[in-house]
Amino acid sequence: MKLAVIPGDGIGPEVVAEGLKVLTGVVPSVETTMYDLGAARWHRTGELLPDSVLRELRQHDAILLGAVGDPTVPSGILERGLLLRLRFELDHHVNLRPARLYPGVAGPLAGDQAIDLVVLREGTEGPYAGNGGLLRKDTPQEIATEVSLNTYFGVERVVRDAFERARRRPRKHLTLVHKTNVLVHAGQLWSRVVEEISMEYPEVSVAYTHMDAAMIYLVTDPGRFDVVVTDNLFGDIFTDLAAAVSGGIGLAASGNLDVSRTNPSMFEPVHGSAPDIAGTGTADPTATVLSVGLLLDHLGLPDAARRVEAAVAFDLATRQAGSSGRTQAVGDRLAALASS
Amino acid sequence: MKLAVIPGDGIGPEVVAEGLKVLTGVVPSVETTMYDLGAARWHRTGELLPDSVLRELRQHDAILLGAVGDPTVPSGILERGLLLRLRFELDHHVNLRPARLYPGVAGPLAGDQAIDLVVLREGTEGPYAGNGGLLRKDTPQEIATEVSLNTYFGVERVVRDAFERARRRPRKHLTLVHKTNVLVHAGQLWSRVVEEISMEYPEVSVAYTHMDAAMIYLVTDPGRFDVVVTDNLFGDIFTDLAAAVSGGIGLAASGNLDVSRTNPSMFEPVHGSAPDIAGTGTADPTATVLSVGLLLDHLGLPDAARRVEAAVAFDLATRQAGSSGRTQAVGDRLAALASS
Ligand SMILES: CC(C)[C@H](C(=O)O)[C@@H](O)C(=O)O
Ligand SMILES: CC(C)[C@H](C(=O)O)[C@@H](O)C(=O)O
Repeated sequence: MKLAVIPGDGIGPEVVAEGLKVLTGVVPSVETTMYDLGAARWHRTGELLPDSVLRELRQHDAILLGAVGDPTVPSGILERGLLLRLRFELDHHVNLRPARLYPGVAGPLAGDQAIDLVVLREGTEGPYAGNGGLLRKDTPQEIATEVSLNTYFGVERVVRDAFERARRRPRKHLTLVHKTNVLVHAGQLWSRVVEEISMEYPEVSVAYTHMDAAMIYLVTDPGRFDVVVTDNLFGDIFTDLAAAVSGGIGLAASGNLDVSRTNPSMFEPVHGSAPDIAGTGTADPTATVLSVGLLLDHLGLPDAARRVEAAVAFDLATRQAGSSGRTQAVGDRLAALASS
Repeated sequence: MKLAVIPGDGIGPEVVAEGLKVLTGVVPSVETTMYDLGAARWHRTGELLPDSVLRELRQHDAILLGAVGDPTVPSGILERGLLLRLRFELDHHVNLRPARLYPGVAGPLAGDQAIDLVVLREGTEGPYAGNGGLLRKDTPQEIATEVSLNTYFGVERVVRDAFERARRRPRKHLTLVHKTNVLVHAGQLWSRVVEEISMEYPEVSVAYTHMDAAMIYLVTDPGRFDVVVTDNLFGDIFTDLAAAVSGGIGLAASGNLDVSRTNPSMFEPVHGSAPDIAGTGTADPTATVLSVGLLLDHLGLPDAARRVEAAVAFDLATRQAGSSGRTQAVGDRLAALASS
């Protein structure tokens, strides 16, 4: 397995080190190449993602990314020039984000909740297309536009993958989340594609929920969701809340998948670079380790993936108030559990 | 006071009746005219909002609306043809939505939360502009677009009103919620306007939060928000979650304000028509009563508004498991408390 690693900024390098520890414990033959991308490189050279690096990244089986973002870089520069550029250039059309409330984890909701859902967030179009502009800037007549681009091509492939995943899950339930009563054009396309593909999957039950109502359900009845498919922006918002109610962004994994396998997929924790705790050795590497689990699944190593997940589940269920929550200690425990 | 009343569909007429009971209790001189708009009229005549009705509505001081929406009408028809059309035609540019966790109300979050925020959701532009289309419909080359339109004119007036409201609140804190790192054009306009207007309000502290992170904060640290200003779509999503964590949409009030007072403002509960419980006499009219409070404030009757709010606060704090939660009983209690 040829793995490209982008540790990135802030706590990125710390959590990635633990992710690699777990990965190499379960799959001995991993060949890693480190790529120095992020705030430091941008400051040093002005580069975000040189074409030569992008070409090299394409030669790998997968990419593991820590986090990008730094208070010394204006907001948006690294996000768009590096993170989103990778997702778009490598055609990561399925942004896979499971949210599961593990036994032993205290979420912010009162009462007992059973949360075990997976979101397929479209990753290469929608309001993230970067399409829009300013007219009459800095005048009282200024107009700013943002264009959400949605194609049958783009919607069909993520919806199809969502049905495939729903079919393989016990509950076989799929929810389209959108705002079809207001965003009628995109809403019509999404609804029509879901209806069309559902004909091929009679065993999957299908529901529709407006995005605003979905937020309510996530805090009052999260158990209703199994597989969720939605657009890039709704998915961004939905998955942060889903992570929050499942015990926090420190446990939320993600895979940016090119389901066609033309380009390497990229795995990253949902959390950011957390500059406030960088270097203190207290970042929780669990989200990165769970992202390694998604990576193993994607590369056709489900047994290894299950071992990583089971290690996390065991560790979360048995983590004591007294046990060390330091980054390396957690990584050591998870690596030992997964490879035992 | 000349009040136009649109009871609407489902539980709309039931909750509006209680809202009017409370209103006429605190302001004896209310002249109401009922307007029969909604699903029934659409079925009967095909009309959603005839021009003649719109002209009549403009002659009133304010509008009280129950709810629109019915399972017998295709999704989007009533929402866009009636509700959104009213908001746009009457230039309701400030959609005011307070969210407060009243003592005695159990929200879905664990632990004690102090929630007392107010959202100013822009109401006449953004992704709600209805701008977009389909190309090559029903082909594999189909493209659907949705254009978010944001103008200096539109952003400035809601941001200014947000600063005005922040200035008058004890905490004097304003948060812009957006996704400026991705929606750069609209994001730049919103950020620039907030920065510009903030110069005129040095006493107001200003923060910025990404929309996705805002969802996390609403369930982990909702107390951080005081006044929130955001666009039409983010506001739609934010306010549903804010309502949910404050004890539910059954308590969430809203005012669709034309701050310039050129057109009548419209007050409505955030909840929908709840067809499943319509006619059972069990709908909670509290959100409508709180919307009446917003109406009184808007029409320059703050003492009456405070009495209505105090009645709701008292009733919520003292509601016993045994006390009647039936629509009319709640309305009777609130009317008696507010007018005593
Ligand atoms: C950093 C940002 C551009 C990114 C996004 O909006 O996709 C992040 O929020 C995420 O969810 O991965
Ligand atoms: C019914 C719908 C069109 C409406 C909206 O999206 O504004 C509703 O969700 C609201 O928040 O008032």
